[in-house]
Amino acid sequence: MVGKTFLRTAVPRIRMLFLFPDVNAMLLLRRCPSLTRLGRVGTQRYQAAPSFASRAARLCSSSSSREDQRSYQHASSGASWKHIVAGLLTGTGAVLTYGLHHQEAEQADAGVPAAEKSSRLPVFSNDEVTKHRSLEDGVWVTYKGGVYDVTEFVAMHPGGNKILLAAGGALEPFWALYAVHDQEHVLEILSQYKVGELSVEDRKKQEDAKVSDPFSSDPERHPVLRVNCKKPFNAEPPPEILTESYITPHVFFFKRNHLPVPQVDPASYRLKVEGLPGGALTLSLEDLKTRFPKHTITATMQCAGNRRSDMNKVKQVKGLNWGISAIGNAKWSGARLRDVLLALGYGPEAAQWARHVHFEGLDKDETGTAYGTSIPINKAVSEEGDVLLAYEMNGEDIPPDHGFPVRVVVPGVVGARNVKWLGRILVSAEESGSHWQQHDYKGFSPGTDWNKVDPKSAPAIQELPVQSAITAPADGAVIDRGDDTLTVKGYAWSGGGREVVRVDVSLDGGRTWQVARLRSGDDGQPDEPSPPPGRAWAWKLWELTAPLPPEAEELEIVCKAVDSSYNVQPDTVPPIWNLRGLLSNAWHRVKVRVAEE
Amino acid sequence: MVGKTFLRTAVPRIRMLFLFPDVNAMLLLRRCPSLTRLGRVGTQRYQAAPSFASRAARLCSSSSSREDQRSYQHASSGASWKHIVAGLLTGTGAVLTYGLHHQEAEQADAGVPAAEKSSRLPVFSNDEVTKHRSLEDGVWVTYKGGVYDVTEFVAMHPGGNKILLAAGGALEPFWALYAVHDQEHVLEILSQYKVGELSVEDRKKQEDAKVSDPFSSDPERHPVLRVNCKKPFNAEPPPEILTESYITPHVFFFKRNHLPVPQVDPASYRLKVEGLPGGALTLSLEDLKTRFPKHTITATMQCAGNRRSDMNKVKQVKGLNWGISAIGNAKWSGARLRDVLLALGYGPEAAQWARHVHFEGLDKDETGTAYGTSIPINKAVSEEGDVLLAYEMNGEDIPPDHGFPVRVVVPGVVGARNVKWLGRILVSAEESGSHWQQHDYKGFSPGTDWNKVDPKSAPAIQELPVQSAITAPADGAVIDRGDDTLTVKGYAWSGGGREVVRVDVSLDGGRTWQVARLRSGDDGQPDEPSPPPGRAWAWKLWELTAPLPPEAEELEIVCKAVDSSYNVQPDTVPPIWNLRGLLSNAWHRVKVRVAEE
Repeated sequence: MVGKTFLRTAVPRIRMLFLFPDVNAMLLLRRCPSLTRLGRVGTQRYQAAPSFASRAARLCSSSSSREDQRSYQHASSGASWKHIVAGLLTGTGAVLTYGLHHQEAEQADAGVPAAEKSSRLPVFSNDEVTKHRSLEDGVWVTYKGGVYDVTEFVAMHPGGNKILLAAGGALEPFWALYAVHDQEHVLEILSQYKVGELSVEDRKKQEDAKVSDPFSSDPERHPVLRVNCKKPFNAEPPPEILTESYITPHVFFFKRNHLPVPQVDPASYRLKVEGLPGGALTLSLEDLKTRFPKHTITATMQCAGNRRSDMNKVKQVKGLNWGISAIGNAKWSGARLRDVLLALGYGPEAAQWARHVHFEGLDKDETGTAYGTSIPINKAVSEEGDVLLAYEMNGEDIPPDHGFPVRVVVPGVVGARNVKWLGRILVSAEESGSHWQQHDYKGFSPGTDWNKVDPKSAPAIQELPVQSAITAPADGAVIDRGDDTLTVKGYAWSGGGREVVRVDVSLDGGRTWQVARLRSGDDGQPDEPSPPPGRAWAWKLWELTAPLPPEAEELEIVCKAVDSSYNVQPDTVPPIWNLRGLLSNAWHRVKVRVAEE
Repeated sequence: MVGKTFLRTAVPRIRMLFLFPDVNAMLLLRRCPSLTRLGRVGTQRYQAAPSFASRAARLCSSSSSREDQRSYQHASSGASWKHIVAGLLTGTGAVLTYGLHHQEAEQADAGVPAAEKSSRLPVFSNDEVTKHRSLEDGVWVTYKGGVYDVTEFVAMHPGGNKILLAAGGALEPFWALYAVHDQEHVLEILSQYKVGELSVEDRKKQEDAKVSDPFSSDPERHPVLRVNCKKPFNAEPPPEILTESYITPHVFFFKRNHLPVPQVDPASYRLKVEGLPGGALTLSLEDLKTRFPKHTITATMQCAGNRRSDMNKVKQVKGLNWGISAIGNAKWSGARLRDVLLALGYGPEAAQWARHVHFEGLDKDETGTAYGTSIPINKAVSEEGDVLLAYEMNGEDIPPDHGFPVRVVVPGVVGARNVKWLGRILVSAEESGSHWQQHDYKGFSPGTDWNKVDPKSAPAIQELPVQSAITAPADGAVIDRGDDTLTVKGYAWSGGGREVVRVDVSLDGGRTWQVARLRSGDDGQPDEPSPPPGRAWAWKLWELTAPLPPEAEELEIVCKAVDSSYNVQPDTVPPIWNLRGLLSNAWHRVKVRVAEE
């Protein structure tokens, strides 16, 4: 095969290093195990079954079992953190590399016309393709009906072995995300690896699946997401992707739907606003965009169930088995709720009796009950509350999974109050009576069980407590004993606009601590400006590079964050365990093994 | 002696129970060990030396040593919590009891004229009196020059053996606090116990001590306070007194002075306000009281060093060795800082550049440097910030130790920003450059030592994290195995206006948890109304009565609080240890022994 020929081609490494230091430093590191922190690329670091491949096979299945969680963690371990660094390369570097590959491929494959090759190739079923998801089994991908064996290209991929995330399935959703692939030579490189055609039946299968299903009009989702529940759709990205960028692309942003995604026509969309002296009013999308100033905030949103899987390890709880990635950070733009309420009549008179603002979504169950919840009035109308009726996420229309055309963004407050597909706002003296306000999204004592729980005894979760987690290395990763240093990465955030002021990292299970470097922007880019006190809505990404402790055979890496109120995370999970597995914010711990190369 | 006669007098217990159930239930409990929770009154529960007596001898000495702390804890243990219950009796009950004693005493002592007795009595030095501070050594007190041996009255005292707090010293400061003693029969009862006169020299000693000392004009303090440092004065009340009342009387409110208490003439007092468009202005006390609405809040204030002694047990830190009582809850009244700033010209223009509000006290060191600090402008000017320029504490003029005539009250924020003896306010673009803002009152990682600490790396402490502590039983207390139940009491509070929503209590070191009952008022009284979200400035007192675990010989009682942001306290001290011993808010733990009566 052409790939093999390419692999054997001598490459003038010195010249490449000179021309493209970033890309080629990485390539060189791949060839020099002793220079890498976690060992060689291509070394199989996946644990025993369930493997990365078995996980990928479940990417689109509905599951919230613990089995799924374990498999997920191993997969994370497989997509080793170091290679993600490569994913941060600039588009320029990657294009240049592709250009180089293209030139070399042309030389190696000059005598074989692509059309001729294609006509000789067999037809594969999708089942056959999905069997090739690892370096051992071969790495197959599909693209526009073609089947490609890119096993030998993995080591060349400028994005590192992140390419494995697409193994056994379609390339399209990945390429759609990384515009660098939108180059003619990329297609040419791919063509060298073609091994067959996908069967016509399988190409049509996806469309056929959408029959008489309330979820059939749900949007497409990216296959890299870990699906905790398919209907309604609940999914989170792999941790190593989560902290790759300060702003989370919407495709990777966790999805937490309670009901099918409603189809909303932006032209006929009307937001009802009730409970103000002027009576019931409606606003069109155009009204929201033109009658009120557009306000943009960077805000992290976290599901109350983020890290629930840590609680499940202590004792089974009820709820979707979220890993550590039910959190994301985005730029949200829209009208301030404060501006809207004031324009529609909120004033001293309403302030006398108003205590809460209710939000109802357009997502409704079979009985017609909409998802609904409420927030305290002071958060809604405060100049410093920054609550938005957002119509943009990361500079584009809010995507369907995130609430198109309008969602509420209540920064610093649990995801559950950030109502999507917003249909109705009600100013009220009372808290929302909805299930999600009165019976769910509340925290209880570890001693409280389902027999004695009294929902009235706990307040609805609004602001969330301080949180942090380690996204790299992954639990179970193997560190090369020859490495001088170890780099640990993660995120940290706190609710209520409290800025994260410090993250402590321990390599010895919490006995000694080092202070991580915090950033509020992409690596190497300037930080976003510091927010005013109490309005730090966005997370911090953090990183610690520390000497690899000598002699250690296993490291228990631990992180804990401190916010501007000097609140800290609790040491352990059992004392904060609660029957719904909410508010899981104990120190995050991962264990890694240190081994000789 | 008369007292013995009195003790032997038969009391019609049944009738007393009928007439005065509260008082007499207590008296009966004292006689019926199996009905009490912690055993008999009068049983010596003090630990080995340093005893309660040795502690009392140091009441007015300057000390922040660990030795002092240990002695303090034993003392707390001595003044057993159960007896404090008696201190909660209503005035009526106590008066009735005194009335009864009076009647009985009259009968027993009928034949001995008081004048005649007095003339026969010896003169004692203060040194001699201070030797009698326990039931073993005898309990002596002084009152207006008389010396009284009240050993045998201890068991009769309606306030329980809290009377021991005055042992070896003067009764006056205690009686001044408990108006119930201001009764003629109380003096008559006391007279029965007179054993001598205090020497004239000792009566004058206290006045003579005030000579050429910058602290000589410091106010009188209550002897029950535990003194961590005498000059400047830093002291806290015994824990068992702290949670006796929802509002902390000013005499028991912890004192944390950085410098001598300044003498301020309220008539000539002027508060300077600078940094606003109108230029420098001054306000008299009268201006503050008449030009602005009087606003009252109930707010808890806590020293950043509260519970520092827990950190000292892990590893020595620098700072006064505070126990768990460097916290108090008071009603503060004054002008809102917001109103004052707005009236003096703060507006949209100033909001463009103003970021901080500085406060300077009138307390100055030898170089003329005043105590100073700052808070963020948004806290200062927010309608919901509730920052006061307070001139009243608990309905009276602010006492000298707490900032007479005006102090800042910044609710939800560390005590250090609540500047006393306020002399100057400055609106500024910069944070205060004072030592206390830039170099002290900051939190660091447990891994940071004095060699590598960079004060700039940490923000000045403003809002404090969630906190709770157990005030009863005391560490080291002995519980009667015959008791059916055990009652645990304490306080809980969080900074930033975050209401405490739950306190979990464990009797087994944190393995299992029960939910305590919270209150926002005195026991048996209605709670104060719930504050709006984010404006819960006052603590909660809490209590748990639970079955005494069978078989247990020792209980490790633990408490942890949860606030409205669902922040929790960390499990252990070492991971939050820091070189200044600030922000000590790990679970509070006390160990008690369970023993047969």
